[in-house]
Formats: sequence, structure tokens, C-alpha cells
Amino acid sequence: MSDITITRLDASSTDFFRQLHDLLAFDKTDNLEIHQRVLAIIADVRSNGDKAVIDYTNRFDHRSVTQISELELSPEILKSAWNGLPTEQAQALQTAADRIRAYAEHQKIESWQYTEADGTVLGQKITPLDRVGLYVPGGKAAYPSSVLMNAIPAKVAGVGELIMVVPAPHGETNQLVLAAASLVGVDRVFTMGGAQAVAALAYGTETLRPVAKIVGPGNIYVATAKKLVFGQVGIDMIAGPSEILIICDGKTNPDWIAMDMFSQAEHDENAQAILISTDASYLDAVEQSINKLLPTMERAEIIRASLTTRGAFIKVNHLEIAAVVANIIAPEHLELSVEDPEALCEEIHHAGAIFMGRYTAEALGDYCAGPNHVLPTSSTARFSSPLGVYDFQKRSSLINCSQAGADTLGKTASILARGESLTAHARSAEYRIKTD
Amino acid sequence: MSDITITRLDASSTDFFRQLHDLLAFDKTDNLEIHQRVLAIIADVRSNGDKAVIDYTNRFDHRSVTQISELELSPEILKSAWNGLPTEQAQALQTAADRIRAYAEHQKIESWQYTEADGTVLGQKITPLDRVGLYVPGGKAAYPSSVLMNAIPAKVAGVGELIMVVPAPHGETNQLVLAAASLVGVDRVFTMGGAQAVAALAYGTETLRPVAKIVGPGNIYVATAKKLVFGQVGIDMIAGPSEILIICDGKTNPDWIAMDMFSQAEHDENAQAILISTDASYLDAVEQSINKLLPTMERAEIIRASLTTRGAFIKVNHLEIAAVVANIIAPEHLELSVEDPEALCEEIHHAGAIFMGRYTAEALGDYCAGPNHVLPTSSTARFSSPLGVYDFQKRSSLINCSQAGADTLGKTASILARGESLTAHARSAEYRIKTD
Repeated sequence: MSDITITRLDASSTDFFRQLHDLLAFDKTDNLEIHQRVLAIIADVRSNGDKAVIDYTNRFDHRSVTQISELELSPEILKSAWNGLPTEQAQALQTAADRIRAYAEHQKIESWQYTEADGTVLGQKITPLDRVGLYVPGGKAAYPSSVLMNAIPAKVAGVGELIMVVPAPHGETNQLVLAAASLVGVDRVFTMGGAQAVAALAYGTETLRPVAKIVGPGNIYVATAKKLVFGQVGIDMIAGPSEILIICDGKTNPDWIAMDMFSQAEHDENAQAILISTDASYLDAVEQSINKLLPTMERAEIIRASLTTRGAFIKVNHLEIAAVVANIIAPEHLELSVEDPEALCEEIHHAGAIFMGRYTAEALGDYCAGPNHVLPTSSTARFSSPLGVYDFQKRSSLINCSQAGADTLGKTASILARGESLTAHARSAEYRIKTD
Repeated sequence: MSDITITRLDASSTDFFRQLHDLLAFDKTDNLEIHQRVLAIIADVRSNGDKAVIDYTNRFDHRSVTQISELELSPEILKSAWNGLPTEQAQALQTAADRIRAYAEHQKIESWQYTEADGTVLGQKITPLDRVGLYVPGGKAAYPSSVLMNAIPAKVAGVGELIMVVPAPHGETNQLVLAAASLVGVDRVFTMGGAQAVAALAYGTETLRPVAKIVGPGNIYVATAKKLVFGQVGIDMIAGPSEILIICDGKTNPDWIAMDMFSQAEHDENAQAILISTDASYLDAVEQSINKLLPTMERAEIIRASLTTRGAFIKVNHLEIAAVVANIIAPEHLELSVEDPEALCEEIHHAGAIFMGRYTAEALGDYCAGPNHVLPTSSTARFSSPLGVYDFQKRSSLINCSQAGADTLGKTASILARGESLTAHARSAEYRIKTD
């Protein structure tokens, strides 16, 4: 296995920002053929309901069911998956679930209101979503941690019914995933997947009631279906390739940093791991660690492909410059592997999750630290947030005018409405002005 | 002018829920030709920057500028629009802005963190968006209230730079809109509009720096452009036709309720106004008021078209049933014109804004009560919220593990990562487990 060389940039070079732009570029063009196929599946499910879902499931997942009820897994099946787990795994899942729940509890938003001097009440009422769909990928890549991260915030928000869908190719299910569903109290589980499952959740069928929101990761068909049903239902973000940016002052064991980069790169060949350091010789040391450790990795080929095509080392002259670069990248995961991470964190404005200090490996956050691992990718941390309880709650404005309040507000509204030539608005307000 | 008859439904009829479904149905199909034209404009602006923006602006808005700087309005121009307002309008705008700001201040989300027994710190850091674009329609329909409602929450959130775009056909601008921009402290204003303005805001040009989010209403080209740049930037909701649902116990002056329905219907022919009452004779009385008042309205033809094609009266036997129907509709605006609106409000789970009591005309909320008038339409209140300060803030998760915390968490993460066959994750966590 030949050594790999990581792309190097220097933030003090005149061409740096263009190079950085090129490094981050990733083609997100929609595949029109997939788009058309998914549109057809959605239309079919809307027209033919259960029958369409059954047909696609039998065809794509090599099943032979005749009704939706055969796709549902009973609570007993989930419970027995949980009971069958090795103790060590059960305890680890339980610990992770407890910590994710404890953190999520801090995110709940609460209703509020205030009363003005004239008795008018203004406020905001918080309600949970009625019903939520959770997509979980099936087949080889089975991620029980994803069940925890998506389901627990919904449950903490008070979502009435949480419906999980997971494809079961040839009828095969993953016990860890079912155990996780049992642990977090998913209300119903159906072994279906693909665009047909997304369409069934969004529009409902004879058997399935439509949900208000669909969350969870999936392949390109699932992601495309989620985009296309958005508006009918809410969706979480459409995730791009996973990314990590590590800022290191050169004093963390280079093996640790190499492995942190691997932990991102092993996800897939398009994943991106970038290390920024003030110390050029440290970048050399991490490269040596990479080449030393790479042959020992199970997913060496994926890691190699990711690091050689999308990985990078960036040399900066000061940590302040590292923060500037981090804010441009707006990374999904940001490790601050430095002596004083609090100080550096003050300079960070855009990141999905910030892992502070040499001991805070990103992998701890992926599983059990508490914060969610569903994070904004592809620089969308400039305007969006980790998945959280707030994604399963919504707000309604409350206005309750006293007679005196309506009198005062009516006069102002009347002037403004007439300025916009909306005279029905004006007259509606004027009716509430006192006439005596 | 002939009398109009409002469609009547009875919630106790066996076919009611299908009828309600048909009443609410609205074709939201994308227009593919517009989609293609907008895609081409966006591609052109991305490739040719300022030049493309100038070309489209000259062509579509009948301008003759040679550089972007000619499209910018100086703070002095905005200030002079404000100074030129009649006192009554200036005071009304000031009152509205003050109330919108006071309400918005309650919406700010704050950073938090907590420390666990072993010294590990978990938290959530809140930051404002760096730069936001505010689209304001130009031409005849000039809505200064829209400038207030979109700009003030952004300012309260602490957005660094707020850039407003407003088309100026033939170079003409609306003084009320410019005055509102001055009042709320918009940072820069450019007289440009359409898909080209949205593209310039999203991707930037030689002159314009890209924004993180674009908000504000626009025509079908603007709405399509916003959909297409979503992901590159955040956007607010794509609004459907405006709607009001009124629940009345039959004891509010029927003229008031008729005018409240008009205030929705005058927006456009697709706007939807629905009245639910427990009292069939009250529905007759409101219909009489409608026919009495309609000939006196400036926008009578629009109101007539809206009420005859999309308006409805729904008779229910109990207010509890009215709440059930309201939760199915999930209306943008909900008036509870009843004796005890607080009790009825308890039953409401899905609505953009709730106007409680006979004095709370929806028009008061449109202009100056305080809550935002940008609200979820087309039943999206099932999963989304009014525009608010929180739409201009975002969250970053914080994790700072102590050495002891990393030791404990590392063991759990290792087990879970190995369960998912992600061994680089596992080894990254294991490095942080104490070895002594």
C-alpha cells in the first residue's frame, strides 16, 4: 500500500481563498432521471395508496406481501430484539439514549405571553407535531445511533405518534436497529423504504395516516422524495457528504488527529476531513501518522479515497486566521484541539457542532455525548442548526385585544392599511374603534 | 351587482370530511416553463455576475444603468423618504415598528450550557446570521408593513447586514417602502428584483456579497428562484394564497365578521375565507352583511371572486367540533370570535396566528399588534411557525469533554461504533480512554 500525500494549502498565499473555494466545491446537481422516477412513484402512491406501496416494496425489496399489515412489526418483535442484545450493547445504547434525552430536554421551547397596560394579551403558543415519520436505511449500513438521534428529540417534544420505516431487503431486518426503536419508544414500525415509503408517510394511504414531518437519512431516491414532498410535510435537511474541520495547535498526539480524520473519511469517499494548524511540522507528523495507521484500518480504501481527493492540510500563521477559515467553511463538525478551546470558540460563528479540547473526539458526539449527530452539512451551518427538539415543535402567535387595545391598535392599523390601499383591512380594524 | 351565495357545509353530514378536503385543495403544481426560465437566469447571474444582473434589470424593469452602484439607494434617499412622510403615517409606522420589536424581543433564543459531575461541558451556542437578503415587491403593490415584519426580527436577532432589494420599474420607487426601510435600519437597498435579484443575493457578484438567507414575498419568478437557491442559502416559507378561518358563536356583529372575511378576500382571488358557526341563522346574517357591504368595497370584484370560488360557511353542532375542523385546516389566520376564547384556544393545535375575542380583528395583527404577519399557509402550520427572530439565529452544539468524561464516553462510543462497523470512530474514541 503506497503512502498518501494530503493536499496542502497555505492561508498566507495570495491565491488561498480561491483554492479554498475549489477544495470545498461539491457537485450537488440533481439527477433528472432519478427525479422523474421518484415523481412517478409519488404520483402512483397518491393514486393507488396501499396497492402501490405493496407493489414497489415487493419489487424493490424482494418481498411477497399482499397487505400493508404484513409489513408492520409488532411491539413484541421490537421488544424481543431489545431483549436479545448482548448486555454490553444494551447498556451502551441505554447510556447513549439517556444522555441524548438529557441534552434534548434543555432544548424544549415553552409557550409565553405578556399582558399590556390596556389588558391586551400577546404571546406564543408551543405545540408538538401530531405525527412524525422516521426514515431508517436498511440493508448492510445499519445505524441504531441514527434511530436514537432522530427519535429522542421527537419524543421529548411530545410528538403524538412516531412512525418508523425501514426497508427489509428479502425480509431481513437488523436487530440493533429494532432494539433501538424499542428502547426509544417508536410507536409503529413498517418494513418499507425508498421513495414509496416517503410518499406513503407524506400523503397517507388507506392504512397509513399522513405525518406532518419526515426525518432521517436515506439514499438518493429517499433524499429526492423528501425534497419533492416538502411543503406537503416538513422535512429535516437534505444532508450532503459528512465533513470535519480540525484546528490543532500542534500539541495533540498526531495519531489521535489522524484517527479523527479517518473517522470522518470512513463514512464515504466524498466525506471531507480538513486539518488546520499553525505548525507546519505538525502537519508532517499527522501525515506520517496517517500513513502509519492507514494499513491497519478496516475501511482503508474508503479512507484513502476520501483523504486523497477531498482531504486537506491548511497552514495558518495564527489561530485567529484558523477561526476566519472555519467561519468560511462553516463545517458540520469542528474540533478545536488546542490549549484554550473556550477562547478560540468565541471566534467561531458558523459550525454544526464544536468539539472542544484534545479529549473531545468527534466520535464521542456521534454516539453518546448528548448533542445530536444530525448536523448541517455543506456550509449550511451559516443559516441552519443541528436537529433538535425545536424541530418537532411549532409556534402559533396569540393576540387577544382588550376593547381599549383594539381601539388604539385599530387607529394605527387603519392608517397603515389605507396606505397600502387595503380598505377592507382598514374597515375591519375601524369597526373595533370605540364610537362613543 | 347580484348577491353572492357562500358555499355551505355541515360538519354533521356523512360526506363532510371529503367536502372539506375538496374545499381546501389548491393546485400548487410548479410551472415548468417558469422553472426553466428561472434556472437560466440563475445560471447567467452565477456566470456573469454584475453584468447579468444589470442586463436583466434594464430589460425587465425598463432601466438603463451601466453599473450596479447606480441601483443602490443611499441612506440619504431613504432618510428623505422617511422625512417626507405625512406625520400620521410616520407615527403609525413608528408605533407598528415599536410593537413588532417589543414582541420580537421575547423570541430571542439564548445560548446555554451545563457542566456534568466529571467536568464535561455540554451546551448550545446561538449566533445570528451574518447577512440576510430581504425581497420587497415593487410596482403597484407596495407593502411597507412587509418591510417591518421581515426586517425587524432580523435586526433583533443581530444580523450583521440586512440587504433589501426592491424592483423599480421605470426607475419608480415607493416612498412608504423606502421610509419603512429607513425606519428599521436596513443596511443597503438596491432597486433590483425578480429571479436575478434572488440569484445575486444567493451567490453574490463582483459587487454584492452573498447572503446566508433570503426572506420576503414576491411573484412566481421570485418564489421559484427562492426554491431553486434553497440549500445555497436559507429561505423563509414559500407562501400559498392567504387564508382566514373564523370561528364564531353567533354573537359578534355580523358586519364585523363579514368585513373580516373581506379583509382576507381582498388580497387576491385565490385567498380563502371560511366561517364556522354553531348557529345556522348567524351564517344567514353574515351572508346578508356580505351582500350589504360588498358594493361599498374598493376591491369588490376581487372579494367577490375569492368568496364565491373559495369561501365557505361551515355549520357545526358544538364549538369542540369547530376546533377539530380548525386543526384539520391548520389555518394561517384563526379568529376565535367567541365568548371564552381562552377555553377554545386550548383545543387549537395547528394555526399560524390565533386572534382571540371579538375585538381582535385579524387586520390588527397584519399591521401593528406585534406578532409577525409572515405566517405558514396551506396547512403548513401543522409543522411550521410564524417568521420570527429564531429564523435569523442558529445553533451550534458545544461539547467539551474532561479527561474523565472522555474516558467514560469513549467506552460507550467504542461499543456503539463497533456495532455499526465504524472502526475508525471506535479507535478515535478509544484513544481518549485512560490507559493507566
